[in-house]
Formats: sequence, structure tokens, C-alpha cells
Amino acid sequence: MNKLFFTPGPAGLFPTVQGHYEQAFRENIGSISHRSSTFRKIYQHADEQLRILFNLPKETGVLFTGSATEVWERVLMNTVEHESFHLVNGSFSKKFHEFSQQLHKFAHKFEKPFGEGFDANEITVPEYAELICTTTNETSSGVQMRVQEIHKLKKSNKDKLLVVDMVSSAPYTNLDFTLVDSAFFSVQKAFGMPAGLGVWFASEEMVEKSKRIQQHEGIVGTYHSLPSLWENYKKFETPETPNVLSIYVLGKVAEDFNRIGVENIRKETERKAKSLYDFAKKSNQFDIFVENESHRSQTVVVLNCKENSSKVIQDLEAKTGMVLGSGYGKLKETQVRIANFPNVNFDQVQELIENLKNLS
Amino acid sequence: MNKLFFTPGPAGLFPTVQGHYEQAFRENIGSISHRSSTFRKIYQHADEQLRILFNLPKETGVLFTGSATEVWERVLMNTVEHESFHLVNGSFSKKFHEFSQQLHKFAHKFEKPFGEGFDANEITVPEYAELICTTTNETSSGVQMRVQEIHKLKKSNKDKLLVVDMVSSAPYTNLDFTLVDSAFFSVQKAFGMPAGLGVWFASEEMVEKSKRIQQHEGIVGTYHSLPSLWENYKKFETPETPNVLSIYVLGKVAEDFNRIGVENIRKETERKAKSLYDFAKKSNQFDIFVENESHRSQTVVVLNCKENSSKVIQDLEAKTGMVLGSGYGKLKETQVRIANFPNVNFDQVQELIENLKNLS
Repeated sequence: MNKLFFTPGPAGLFPTVQGHYEQAFRENIGSISHRSSTFRKIYQHADEQLRILFNLPKETGVLFTGSATEVWERVLMNTVEHESFHLVNGSFSKKFHEFSQQLHKFAHKFEKPFGEGFDANEITVPEYAELICTTTNETSSGVQMRVQEIHKLKKSNKDKLLVVDMVSSAPYTNLDFTLVDSAFFSVQKAFGMPAGLGVWFASEEMVEKSKRIQQHEGIVGTYHSLPSLWENYKKFETPETPNVLSIYVLGKVAEDFNRIGVENIRKETERKAKSLYDFAKKSNQFDIFVENESHRSQTVVVLNCKENSSKVIQDLEAKTGMVLGSGYGKLKETQVRIANFPNVNFDQVQELIENLKNLS
Repeated sequence: MNKLFFTPGPAGLFPTVQGHYEQAFRENIGSISHRSSTFRKIYQHADEQLRILFNLPKETGVLFTGSATEVWERVLMNTVEHESFHLVNGSFSKKFHEFSQQLHKFAHKFEKPFGEGFDANEITVPEYAELICTTTNETSSGVQMRVQEIHKLKKSNKDKLLVVDMVSSAPYTNLDFTLVDSAFFSVQKAFGMPAGLGVWFASEEMVEKSKRIQQHEGIVGTYHSLPSLWENYKKFETPETPNVLSIYVLGKVAEDFNRIGVENIRKETERKAKSLYDFAKKSNQFDIFVENESHRSQTVVVLNCKENSSKVIQDLEAKTGMVLGSGYGKLKETQVRIANFPNVNFDQVQELIENLKNLS
């Protein structure tokens, strides 16, 4: 039976991905030098397609790391000399905050219970915080922070840098990068690729901040410091031998997304999310976990299960080949998480809903 | 025309690699959770096969990073509180030394000219150096440090940790891991895989050192600190979502290598290297770059060219599909670098030699 993955990460592969890998092997992409013009063209192609997809202004660069987890560390090392500020409402935003502590920064936080979200008007950013760390989509709890709220937050704190963890919502999240200083994601979520590459958008202002920290005798890392990444980026190179294959495939998938049109992807995401939430509202087996409707994620739908969720997941997979994500951490046995990424279309989501109805 | 890569990195793919990727796609390895038992079995398999291949004692762990470049940074952050010591004789050992300076360590070095190598008896390790940083194979210059010399160096400095950069010589380098504390490589060299994964062997003593630095209020990083990597390794997991596909393929290639037998790989490497050096000795077109025979690399053969080396490389590729590496940095136009990795067999090396003879 062919499997269809609705897991929130690593997720199901986008349908074109395997073909792009095959083409990469035919073109010897695994053997080319990362100091060759062939590689520079690959980087430039990915850059161009991501610029279109995310509507990036020219001041924003496209940098590559090993993972989004790595960006948590790098952005804190490079743009926080003393104090960071974190919105924490789930397992991943919590880890982002803990990274700052481990790097001996003074890490402020505004914390809400698991399953609750943030609006701009309730947030007071501490006076000396240099970087505001937000998460548009808590993959663990299915809570989103709407882009309007992120934009408002930046507008009321223009003297501070703001970074957005959009790991499980890019490219759905329609950020205004003339406002937002930085954002990042990893390719194994909505881009439907195998894991092993982090994508980091950063403005020149972020690079300048990192250089100031260096001048003040601060440590900003080595090969993956912002100045080092940026210096290489200017010639479409990377400091180390990167995951060339993955950068190649990312450029191709971004091109596929642009062919569909990001606005169409966003509309389809909302249409699929609505049908999942509508189903749960009427269901006797499931409840929507996130109470506040405006905080409900459009890309990771989290539902409480009346019966043991592991059993639901196992039964569904055995009968239909469809794979859901389990609840995160302590909620492993009581929740399911349904990734609503471009790898599944509207009809497949309807089929999932029918299959869930027929389970009981 | 099919290409055959003799480039030192990224190198030609090992013949089984593409098939392993295809199998990984059939098994949905790109979509499995990195917290699943399927992933843990993949990690465990890679661990088992690498343990056989490198004859690792139980005290040595097998850890994964994004690149070998990352290990330079991590090993310095995690095991050097104040002072490191570096043997520098080429572009890569030089960068390793510079990383230590960028991390504000007191970085001692013993430096030799490009093309020269080290023996243990000429090395005096500074009294307070905590970590000795060696490179078995300078990919830039084709100079090796023989394992006997590395072992001697550790035996005369038992109170210090010793790490070996074996990026372009693993698994040819036959290190005694009951002596050597740590070593690392990346998969795009002799393992003939696409880039995007670093492999780091580290002893428990290294982890203990990192914990002591933490206790002394030192910063050892976050998710990829040695204690964090080690804690996850104990259950065959990784702190972040790793390059799962690459870990899967690495386990398979290590299994292929074990089927051939590492001793056979080593003998074949020496036989191929000898034929390349013998050819260069008699040639009117080429000279061996490294003068001291015992310092000549077995895995990356560097030759001076009588005529412009870019022209040699272009002509060879156009006529035969065989691709050589150019000289490194300033020597780009005057040298060729020939990777002698398991992706090419003895007969192919003879064919290369004949093709080089017929070029002029």
C-alpha cells in the first residue's frame, strides 16, 4: 500500500521531489565542486526562486545552515550581545528560549500555556532586549501567531530586531520582509523534502549587528557567523561544503511552488484547514485543541482524540496507508497532529476525513 | 560521455550510492520521524558498520553534524577551555587554527611550509595546551601525517586530548582509537556520497571535558554540544532533525566497505597511489609535489604540471570524461590534485595514466 504522510515533520514528500533528486544524480550534482560556477548557478537559482516566493527585498539575504535548529543558535550568537526576548507557548519556542540561556544571554520571556497564542497588544518587550524571537506556528501545539500581529509587534518596537521561526508554516506565512528582519525554516516541512537543510533569511542590518558584537570582543562563531555566511553569499557560495543536492532540489521545489503561485498555495491551505476544523467540530471522535479560533494553525491541525490516539493512528495507517502525526511529548496518546502541507491536495484531505469517519 | 571523477571533494560517487538513495525513497526514509524506532535502527546500523570499519572501542561514540567544518568549531568549543595546539601545513589545518582564534582560545601552532609534513619527534606541545589538533591528510597540498606519528605524538602527551581531521583519508587512515580521543570526516570524500553530513568520533573523556567547561561557566554551544549529542546518541537519536537520508546511505556504504574489507581497501589505495606516483616520476609532463616520500598522501595525489593545469584538466575531461581536481588556491593553474578514493578501481587509475600520457 502506498503511504500518504500527514505528519508534521519530517513530512510527506512533495510529489516532484523524488524526480528532482533523480535529475540531480543524472547531472552529477553530488560530485560538483562547491567552488564551481555550476554550484554558484544552483545557489543563485534557489535564491531567485525563494525571493519570488517570499517577496524578499534586496536587503534580505538567503543563507543556508544544516537545520532550523542551527539557526536558533546562530541568530542568538550573532545578534544578541546581552538580552533576548522570547514568546514561549510550546515545546519549540521553549527550546529557542533555552538556547539563549545556554549561550549565557539574559533571556526574557513572555510565556503562555500550551495551546494558547499571542496578540501584539498584550506584549511588552523589555527595554534592553535586542532581539524579539517569535514563532509563527508552534508545531507542538498547533497554535499560530498571525502575521498581522507579528507586523504590529515590530512596528511598536522598531529599534529592536525581530526574527520569526516559520519552520512549519513557510511559505504559507506571508511576512512583510521590509518590516521583519529575519526568518527561517527547514525543508522537511511544507517544502516536502528530506531533512538536512535550514534556510535563513537575514537582513543586512542583522549582519551589521553581528559585526558590532565582534568589535566589542563578543564571540559570534566561526564559519557560520553571519558575516562569514554573508561574505560567501555575495558570490553565491557557502563557507563549508554544503548539502548541495538539497539546495538544488529546494530551488526546483520553490520553482514548482511559484508555478502554482504562492497565493493559490495559501488559499488551498486555508480551504483544507477549514474542512479539517469543520469536520472536528461536528465529530464525536475528535475535538479541536486550540480554543481561540484566530490562534488556530492553518498548517498543523491539532485535535484531541476521544480514544487513544496511537490506536487511531495505527488503525488509519493499517486500513488506508494514511499516516497522521502523534501528539507532542506528554500528549502523544491523547492528540493527533495533521500536517496540512502542499504535499496533500484538497481531495486527499477529504479522503482523510472520510477515512477518519469510517474508523469508528 | 559518462564522467569519472578523480576530484578530491566533493568526489565521485561510490558506485552503490545512487542505488541506496533509490532504496531510501522506496522505503519513505525522507518522511519518517527522527523520533521513531525506524530512525533509531538506521542510526544504530550506521553506528555498527562504522564501528567495524574503524575498529572503534566501546568508549568512542559516533556523532553526526552538518559538515566536518562544523566539527572544527564544535570540538574547539567543547574541549578547549583556554589553549589549543595546531599542526599547520596547508589551507585546511590553517582554517582549523583560525577557528580557535575566532572562538577566543589561545591557539598555539607549529607551522610548516605548504607541501611539507610532520613527524612526532620534531613536535613540542605547549605545556598548557588542552587539545592537540592534527590533520592526517592535507587535502590542499597532498601531505599526510602517518598514523604511527600521530600515535607517537599522543603517547608522549597522554595528559592531553588529541583530535584527528581525517576528512580526506577516512577509512584509509588506520587510527588506534584506544589512543586517539577523537577524529572526524565528511561523507563527500572517500565514502563517495553527496555532501551534507559530518561524522564525529569522540570518546567519553571528551564529553567529560565539555561538562567540566560548562561547570566552569564556559559556553559549549547548545544542541550540538558534546553532552547534548552524547545524551541523544545513547538512544540512537540526534538533538535536531538530521540528514536522515544521508545517515541511512552512510550505513549502507560502510556495510559495502566492510564487505570488501577495510584491509583490502587500504591495500588497493596504496597500490593505486604507487602507480600514480610511479607514473609522475617518469613523466615529462608532471612532477610529484611533496618531496618527502613518507609525507606523500595515499588518498590525494598532488602533481606539479609543466603546462597550465587548467588546460590539462579541460583537455582530459573533453577527450575522456575523466575529471581531475585543480590545484588549491594560488596553485590552481600549476597543479592537479587526483583523489584516490574507493570510487575508482585500479584499472580505472591505469586508464587515467594512459589518458594523461596520450594528452600531449
